[in-house]
Amino acid sequence: MYPEYFKIAGEWTLAADRRMDSSVVIRENGQPDVVENRNLRRGDKVVLGRTERAEEGIYLHSCGFADPDEAGPEDQFVFRQGRSRETAFARDYDRLTELLSYEREHGNIVWVMGPAFAFDAGARDSMAALIDRGYCHGLFAGNALATHDLEGALLHTALGQDIYTQRPVSGGHYNHLDICNRVRRCGSIPEFIKEYGLDNGIMCSCVKNGVPFVLGGSIRDDGPLPEVIADVYRAQDAMRGILRKATTVICLATMLHTIAAGNMTPSYRVLRDGSVRPVYFYAVDADEFVVNKLLDRGSLSATTMVTNVQDFIRILANRLV
Amino acid sequence: MYPEYFKIAGEWTLAADRRMDSSVVIRENGQPDVVENRNLRRGDKVVLGRTERAEEGIYLHSCGFADPDEAGPEDQFVFRQGRSRETAFARDYDRLTELLSYEREHGNIVWVMGPAFAFDAGARDSMAALIDRGYCHGLFAGNALATHDLEGALLHTALGQDIYTQRPVSGGHYNHLDICNRVRRCGSIPEFIKEYGLDNGIMCSCVKNGVPFVLGGSIRDDGPLPEVIADVYRAQDAMRGILRKATTVICLATMLHTIAAGNMTPSYRVLRDGSVRPVYFYAVDADEFVVNKLLDRGSLSATTMVTNVQDFIRILANRLV
Amino acid sequence: MYPEYFKIAGEWTLAADRRMDSSVVIRENGQPDVVENRNLRRGDKVVLGRTERAEEGIYLHSCGFADPDEAGPEDQFVFRQGRSRETAFARDYDRLTELLSYEREHGNIVWVMGPAFAFDAGARDSMAALIDRGYCHGLFAGNALATHDLEGALLHTALGQDIYTQRPVSGGHYNHLDICNRVRRCGSIPEFIKEYGLDNGIMCSCVKNGVPFVLGGSIRDDGPLPEVIADVYRAQDAMRGILRKATTVICLATMLHTIAAGNMTPSYRVLRDGSVRPVYFYAVDADEFVVNKLLDRGSLSATTMVTNVQDFIRILANRLV
Amino acid sequence: MYPEYFKIAGEWTLAADRRMDSSVVIRENGQPDVVENRNLRRGDKVVLGRTERAEEGIYLHSCGFADPDEAGPEDQFVFRQGRSRETAFARDYDRLTELLSYEREHGNIVWVMGPAFAFDAGARDSMAALIDRGYCHGLFAGNALATHDLEGALLHTALGQDIYTQRPVSGGHYNHLDICNRVRRCGSIPEFIKEYGLDNGIMCSCVKNGVPFVLGGSIRDDGPLPEVIADVYRAQDAMRGILRKATTVICLATMLHTIAAGNMTPSYRVLRDGSVRPVYFYAVDADEFVVNKLLDRGSLSATTMVTNVQDFIRILANRLV
Repeated sequence: MYPEYFKIAGEWTLAADRRMDSSVVIRENGQPDVVENRNLRRGDKVVLGRTERAEEGIYLHSCGFADPDEAGPEDQFVFRQGRSRETAFARDYDRLTELLSYEREHGNIVWVMGPAFAFDAGARDSMAALIDRGYCHGLFAGNALATHDLEGALLHTALGQDIYTQRPVSGGHYNHLDICNRVRRCGSIPEFIKEYGLDNGIMCSCVKNGVPFVLGGSIRDDGPLPEVIADVYRAQDAMRGILRKATTVICLATMLHTIAAGNMTPSYRVLRDGSVRPVYFYAVDADEFVVNKLLDRGSLSATTMVTNVQDFIRILANRLV
Repeated sequence: MYPEYFKIAGEWTLAADRRMDSSVVIRENGQPDVVENRNLRRGDKVVLGRTERAEEGIYLHSCGFADPDEAGPEDQFVFRQGRSRETAFARDYDRLTELLSYEREHGNIVWVMGPAFAFDAGARDSMAALIDRGYCHGLFAGNALATHDLEGALLHTALGQDIYTQRPVSGGHYNHLDICNRVRRCGSIPEFIKEYGLDNGIMCSCVKNGVPFVLGGSIRDDGPLPEVIADVYRAQDAMRGILRKATTVICLATMLHTIAAGNMTPSYRVLRDGSVRPVYFYAVDADEFVVNKLLDRGSLSATTMVTNVQDFIRILANRLV
Repeated sequence: MYPEYFKIAGEWTLAADRRMDSSVVIRENGQPDVVENRNLRRGDKVVLGRTERAEEGIYLHSCGFADPDEAGPEDQFVFRQGRSRETAFARDYDRLTELLSYEREHGNIVWVMGPAFAFDAGARDSMAALIDRGYCHGLFAGNALATHDLEGALLHTALGQDIYTQRPVSGGHYNHLDICNRVRRCGSIPEFIKEYGLDNGIMCSCVKNGVPFVLGGSIRDDGPLPEVIADVYRAQDAMRGILRKATTVICLATMLHTIAAGNMTPSYRVLRDGSVRPVYFYAVDADEFVVNKLLDRGSLSATTMVTNVQDFIRILANRLV
Repeated sequence: MYPEYFKIAGEWTLAADRRMDSSVVIRENGQPDVVENRNLRRGDKVVLGRTERAEEGIYLHSCGFADPDEAGPEDQFVFRQGRSRETAFARDYDRLTELLSYEREHGNIVWVMGPAFAFDAGARDSMAALIDRGYCHGLFAGNALATHDLEGALLHTALGQDIYTQRPVSGGHYNHLDICNRVRRCGSIPEFIKEYGLDNGIMCSCVKNGVPFVLGGSIRDDGPLPEVIADVYRAQDAMRGILRKATTVICLATMLHTIAAGNMTPSYRVLRDGSVRPVYFYAVDADEFVVNKLLDRGSLSATTMVTNVQDFIRILANRLV
């Protein structure tokens, strides 16, 4: 996902949008084009070299955005080199606050959400507020997140448990199915929101503010809701459509979708004026294993934060007013 | 997923195969038929009652298989009631060993595997041995597990890391893609195995022993391999086809597929002679959160074990010779 | 730790301060006295009965403070019964905010802190602010917490890593030892703070506001600081001295000290006017295992929250101004 | 803890037993002596230099035992660099098996055990068998491990739960206290074992085989047992006495004691014939956080394995017959 240059007709040319899931095709106009492997066509001139240090006309600039001030001392021994729940996250919050304030106007912020994100009334309200305030230009999730959020909007429960009092309501395990059925009868999430006069939650805010969302199907879905894309590779394409404009991606409590988003997000973007800027990628989860797995899968330029995403979003919403 | 009886024409009738993802339709012959909600048809006589204690002709027998000897004392206070890494698992291993010895001949054992299961040479060999010895009648996984396992079979690596020495090989991050490409060129996993003369690993043992497998697609897939089902709801149907015969299900290191399997597995089976037997469901993961989540999702009759699945399978293979 | 009544001379008498680590001695005046097992003396009239339902003059009231409104429905099946990172914590924050506002004036709040709590500049400032504002009447921790916090106060690092920028400083792994040495040379933490003119952090705020603290020694200590109690059973006694007045206990990111505090905290307190009130016990940790272990050890009346304690304290400090 | 050389009177001399918790004193005979900071005396000639590359007469050989064959490729990009539950552990088991076979005769193996290690009948038997077979030359644990193990030996429970069937026994939460009381009455663990004719478990095997053990007190102890050392710094000294001879240290399911042992274990040993050999240090835990924390604390030469320690010991005992 790093900036990669190709020597084409004697010129080193930067490929826009280099990603982990793609190859590079040299087009007739001599430009390098980043194409998902699945979409390569017979006859494409695919760059096949596997060297990265300009030996064969390929140069990978893996530290292009590294801040030289960030380099640590050259000591042989240093405590605390990894990131864990014990990492100091104060500066990460400050930077993210500053970043999102900038990106609201000048960038494109995509949120990726795990199935349980809407279980807490407060976190759900915080996220909805961030969307209402313009901090969300695209959302990616699965059937469960949308269903739980809409159950909250209509019945104030998630899987039958009150999202504020934590109390299970009688027969509440049917709520989930009832929501699926009602939305399906309405034909779409916006129609459901309209018909039932809903006014709160994440999906509501997306619809109200015209924020595009992609719901990818998964093997554990009930329903699904009408908008859910059953074919995972078509869902990838839809996700890519949203991520193509992203300049900041924030993944919350989902290993599956975080890795998916990591695979298809470049670490930089070429702007219209030809200048190059970083794409920021955050992964937030309560478990070190999940955020480390992202790094194990190669998404090295991500900023990982280890905390409950409910609190993460509470804190952000409190700062981004 | 518990045994559920319906009073039809004055008779209490047990529905075969009751599952969490399904409703019950009364057919013309007066028999209750368990139908996945997605497959209900207009005109079906669906049982709508939501009571469970025979008030409206529905009786849920949620503790039908509970062992009365297992009941603890009625003390108001007892230490250590949950299951965690500190639970004593010795008896669970003994019971599972005994169970699988029985099921090999008289039952049907389905394994559900997470993407990383094939990362360790020893665990991979152990699993292959269990398949070869007849302890696997069906396997359910995703694209990643199969790709990693086949990378191990051809190149002795997984994501470019040697599966025994842990050493990354040069250019190894291409291995994954090379495997995808080669299998696709061969047209199928069995053809790939044949063409390259592979003789080890999980997929090899499945093919060699005619064990059916279902590979469900997911949003983070590369490739995919030819056998992968892109439409998750079709993949669910295929999975159900395998689980329909299962009498024991063992899920290893996969939250997504474990919940999926839990949704579609009944806690009992009606045999040909009309007798009823339990369906055993095991979920094994290094993280309490994953196995507890299964319980949170309602799969209450599962046995959960908290350990690294590599060691779990090493121990089983050592006992089930 | 529940309210327990003893029939003495025909009267049912409530023992004040019933705890897990103690027995009950009937004193000459006929009053039940709760005595730590280690401090029983030959000749003490210890209550030996092990029944709890008044059969032998002992009555344990294990649900004395249960809110009848909290009872869930009697459904045979309910999703999501445990507490995990996916529990809705919004109400817990609201209740805790309200509780601490009340306790500041009318109760006694004791904080129990794990070794890494002071690693983040923001969390450290938040905790110091809560102390300054009167929300802390006692603190219990180990040598590490105090040393890390004082390293932050003097050098703005913890184990050599800047507590805001996360950058390791050159030779920073000596900072820890330098702090130990300097405090020891000064003779005490207050003297160290005075001599070096320190004005920030947790220990500073404790000293400034006259909040008593107990630092218990542990097997992994360097140093230790002068105030650290090397004998763990004397440290228990000192801790008990602080907990004897506590009406709310909040444990942050420490399994060891959380279990220790749980062992010696009753679930109720008898006030001077003879009325009985609950003692609130919170345990906050990023890992379900830690908070569940508290429950496994029998501290059933605790409220557990699963999150990074840095964020927990940020949110509290933001609300409790 | 790495080999460190000091230039004394023109000669580069290796300090024996260099550890994290110690300074180096040059003795009158010109030899460097490694002394725990707490035990430095006024007038000692302590080496004060903080450089490590021979600039000031100090040379730290941090990669002295690195295997050149282990070096990976110089690729800019490599998957899976950390160690987690997904690391391939097959070779680690093979190496450890080989190592312990060697160390039984030619080395000194010290085990460090967390409080819950004895909760499982099978794991407890496996550990006892390893001791009986000569694979344990010293054991370090806390009060809880010994109490739980002796509860298992006498009552076949741990904290009142049967260590095989997992069933709580009536009144079982008293078992723990009963054991403490009985051992205290006997005066020592060996006396207790003798008086009650116990013949199984970890402590039994230690006593039977004359394996020295150190039980360090902790703030959460009941009891304690007579052998427990209440003063943690005296406990450290006792632990050091055992570790001084260790050539392999294996820590199981204890963050506290693992870090403690890491602090006081050198990475090498100078043998009588002047040759230098590595000291092997293993840390095994179900949680990545625990084993990573060891690395964060600087014990870089440890081998970490992520699994349930019950299974780890089952597998080892099966191989080391």
